[in-house]
Amino acid sequence: MKALRNTWYVAAWDFEVEPGRILARRLLDEALILYRDERGGPLAAADRCPHRLAPLSAGRLEGGALRCMYHGLLFDSAGRCIDVPGQEHISPNLKLKTYPVAERDRLIWIWMGDAALADPALIPDAHWLAAPDWRAKPGYIHYDRANYVTIMDNLLDFSHLGFVHENTLGGGRVSAEVKPQIERFEWGLRISRLYSNTPLAPYLKGLAKFDGPVDRWQIYDWRVAGNLLSMDFGSAPAGVGALEGARPPEALVFHTVQALTPETEGSTHYFWAAANGFELDNPTVTEEIHRQTAIAFAEDKFIIQAQQAVIDEHPHERMTGIAADAGLQQGRAILGRLLQAEAEREAAA
Amino acid sequence: MKALRNTWYVAAWDFEVEPGRILARRLLDEALILYRDERGGPLAAADRCPHRLAPLSAGRLEGGALRCMYHGLLFDSAGRCIDVPGQEHISPNLKLKTYPVAERDRLIWIWMGDAALADPALIPDAHWLAAPDWRAKPGYIHYDRANYVTIMDNLLDFSHLGFVHENTLGGGRVSAEVKPQIERFEWGLRISRLYSNTPLAPYLKGLAKFDGPVDRWQIYDWRVAGNLLSMDFGSAPAGVGALEGARPPEALVFHTVQALTPETEGSTHYFWAAANGFELDNPTVTEEIHRQTAIAFAEDKFIIQAQQAVIDEHPHERMTGIAADAGLQQGRAILGRLLQAEAEREAAA
Amino acid sequence: MKALRNTWYVAAWDFEVEPGRILARRLLDEALILYRDERGGPLAAADRCPHRLAPLSAGRLEGGALRCMYHGLLFDSAGRCIDVPGQEHISPNLKLKTYPVAERDRLIWIWMGDAALADPALIPDAHWLAAPDWRAKPGYIHYDRANYVTIMDNLLDFSHLGFVHENTLGGGRVSAEVKPQIERFEWGLRISRLYSNTPLAPYLKGLAKFDGPVDRWQIYDWRVAGNLLSMDFGSAPAGVGALEGARPPEALVFHTVQALTPETEGSTHYFWAAANGFELDNPTVTEEIHRQTAIAFAEDKFIIQAQQAVIDEHPHERMTGIAADAGLQQGRAILGRLLQAEAEREAAA
Repeated sequence: MKALRNTWYVAAWDFEVEPGRILARRLLDEALILYRDERGGPLAAADRCPHRLAPLSAGRLEGGALRCMYHGLLFDSAGRCIDVPGQEHISPNLKLKTYPVAERDRLIWIWMGDAALADPALIPDAHWLAAPDWRAKPGYIHYDRANYVTIMDNLLDFSHLGFVHENTLGGGRVSAEVKPQIERFEWGLRISRLYSNTPLAPYLKGLAKFDGPVDRWQIYDWRVAGNLLSMDFGSAPAGVGALEGARPPEALVFHTVQALTPETEGSTHYFWAAANGFELDNPTVTEEIHRQTAIAFAEDKFIIQAQQAVIDEHPHERMTGIAADAGLQQGRAILGRLLQAEAEREAAA
Repeated sequence: MKALRNTWYVAAWDFEVEPGRILARRLLDEALILYRDERGGPLAAADRCPHRLAPLSAGRLEGGALRCMYHGLLFDSAGRCIDVPGQEHISPNLKLKTYPVAERDRLIWIWMGDAALADPALIPDAHWLAAPDWRAKPGYIHYDRANYVTIMDNLLDFSHLGFVHENTLGGGRVSAEVKPQIERFEWGLRISRLYSNTPLAPYLKGLAKFDGPVDRWQIYDWRVAGNLLSMDFGSAPAGVGALEGARPPEALVFHTVQALTPETEGSTHYFWAAANGFELDNPTVTEEIHRQTAIAFAEDKFIIQAQQAVIDEHPHERMTGIAADAGLQQGRAILGRLLQAEAEREAAA
Repeated sequence: MKALRNTWYVAAWDFEVEPGRILARRLLDEALILYRDERGGPLAAADRCPHRLAPLSAGRLEGGALRCMYHGLLFDSAGRCIDVPGQEHISPNLKLKTYPVAERDRLIWIWMGDAALADPALIPDAHWLAAPDWRAKPGYIHYDRANYVTIMDNLLDFSHLGFVHENTLGGGRVSAEVKPQIERFEWGLRISRLYSNTPLAPYLKGLAKFDGPVDRWQIYDWRVAGNLLSMDFGSAPAGVGALEGARPPEALVFHTVQALTPETEGSTHYFWAAANGFELDNPTVTEEIHRQTAIAFAEDKFIIQAQQAVIDEHPHERMTGIAADAGLQQGRAILGRLLQAEAEREAAA
């Protein structure tokens, strides 16, 4: 499925765009470069010189200006050509296509639609990645063979936890039997899954300071525009009130941020981090939750890409719904409505 | 060329479908799974869950039932969904597409056309692979880049023996000069090639207990539906009457079964075995004929796939016939008639 | 872009076509074989047997005749079939498609258009590759992902020297600032670039017997039909009159021949040699200029193939001209005219 354009997407982790280096990355099927100006501010542009289309990712930074290393044209941070070797007058047509970008919460955000609509106030909250009361390690997965919607489906239906993640996130049949509460908003869905008196998930065994059954919660927002999942989740000893909101000191309290940015129609960037809100002075906790989550997310990638291959081979085959599809059906409905609105706005323009 | 659907094809060797394991295999451009029920009987189904098309080859066998390991749906051996985790009522639309299969002569046979026509009595005879008076070692070649008809052409024209198999099956120019007798039937062709007083083929040198020239015979049936070759062949000392049917004890008597099952339009499964009907207590004979035949069949694969690449690049280029093409021309004519009949039956349905 | 057919192209270096061996090579999107007859003369034919399209590159030379190793057909040097094993009468339709070829100046030339027009007198001069007063080592680059016109663009605009070849051919901004003289002919362009009192190019440092600034010249013909560049170039101590034609004994005097032969529309053979006309008895000079040029040409390949990928992704994106494009614009104009003339001639035939 095509992607919305008039929204902020995660383009990169901040550390991927090193000062003095040019990062080549494809987003929404557009080959881009990401780099920094002289003061360190992020910049994004099309990865092609307007002269003869040589890729600027093979170019060179000279201060905050960008030199194409085929014929030497130089572009300033606004995309204007400011030097053509051997030529005095420079045509204003020699203009680089640039994109609004912003850096916040350790992420570089990009707006690839109408630049006039790119309001930084619309950048979603991801403060758990940067705030002092959380610890997060940046994660990234390249889905080389999956449309972002197939991954979205997975994130909106946690009934798969007991099967895909039997030995990691775990949950067994209960993850399918616990009925999620789904609230629908203009911007997306809020989904709450509460598990009472259930075994601790296998992948958390090394982190818990307590034994016995737990109360477990997964409460997340799925923001359809930009494909952003923001989830409060964790486990606490059963019966201490965690499902009613209590967070005793020994509780394992986490917040993940997961963002899907289409690379092409058939591939997707998946930026993620699972921040821990406890034992802030113990970096092994952050390392361990990162390591375990990465294993579970690789399980998702395996089944999602395998599923995508079947879907691609049978584009007209109808799927058959089950009750657990409620979340993904609503998510797809919102996405469809937003895509249609964007198409209508473009047609009217 | 497309393949006939209303016929039995070899889907696998029996040992490839291990109890408790799921074998993923593509046949006639359909991704399938092959597995066994609780009593060991073979089963075949489409490799996609009717829920959201996840591949069932990534699933799990629970007794004779098959669990999709994405969301946990369970299917019985008839393809009916018998468990949806977290849900009571199960829609009858949650039905797996299954195919008739049968196990005979160490082969798993499949019928991918109209299941109502799948009469086990139509399964071709391949008893040489399993009978007590023969010894056979299963062989398999994956033609990753050849339509089955290009391989059929090769099997219907042995004039290539002296060139492609100069140092293995051998025969030199004589294999082109001996005129085959070709009999045409509804089901295909019977081709007989008798070589009188000729050198022993290079690849049989290690197996013969006699010296000097031989009489050599190759008498085979090509069954067009299902692409099955069944050949009585061998060599005996010249002049003892082998070409009239005598089989003296020292004769090297063989029977091959070779079956082509289209994988896609551009790739083919090639199941084969060369059974020996002599020295039954000496397993090295069977090993040696298998080894030597595999070398010769690799020679075929090389030239056939190279030829296929040229054909694919020049789809409209006419071939120019020679006398030796008689067999393959007749084989193609029968195939064309059967394909047309099947198309007409489908159009009428 | 498509290629002209009615012209001589370089098919191979002479040594690539070894006596008794068959060389398979694709030229102008046609799979060919190159080989030699009994007297050593070069031959070229389509790489497919007219019988059933098996590739003849898998065949065998028998004297000057070519045997297809599928069914044994034999072809003489004129492409006539002279043996069909097991058959007396041979159809004249069993004819191999052959192409005019010629061997000159250590190159094998081929004419892939109308054979009646293949006049050997039209073969371009490349005597620097073979003459006693020059020394040349054959070079070859396979452009696996570039149309020949994208490489032609590069050869017609040396303003890239200071950027692509900053540390090899060198020149810095001066290579963009020195205005070339461009003369236009029916057959192509003559381009002269004279650099007065400039630093010696980095890659020549090991070859010069003098210090200090140099006068540098690059005077080349680009023959549009056949894509042949023939360049007189070199450096001499500044002020001794090199730019007016003087060639003092210490001057570094070179002549390159560079020929682009389309392999497919997206890939190109690049034959080249940089002959030296000084220190003829010192083979290390020839080795060194070859080695250094190969490094520089790999720099070109990198940027050209990267550019080609962008062009292929944006086939309708307009390029924006700069003054340095004058040569390539004229070269493309001549090519366009020749292609149109060829198309009109074909339409009229």
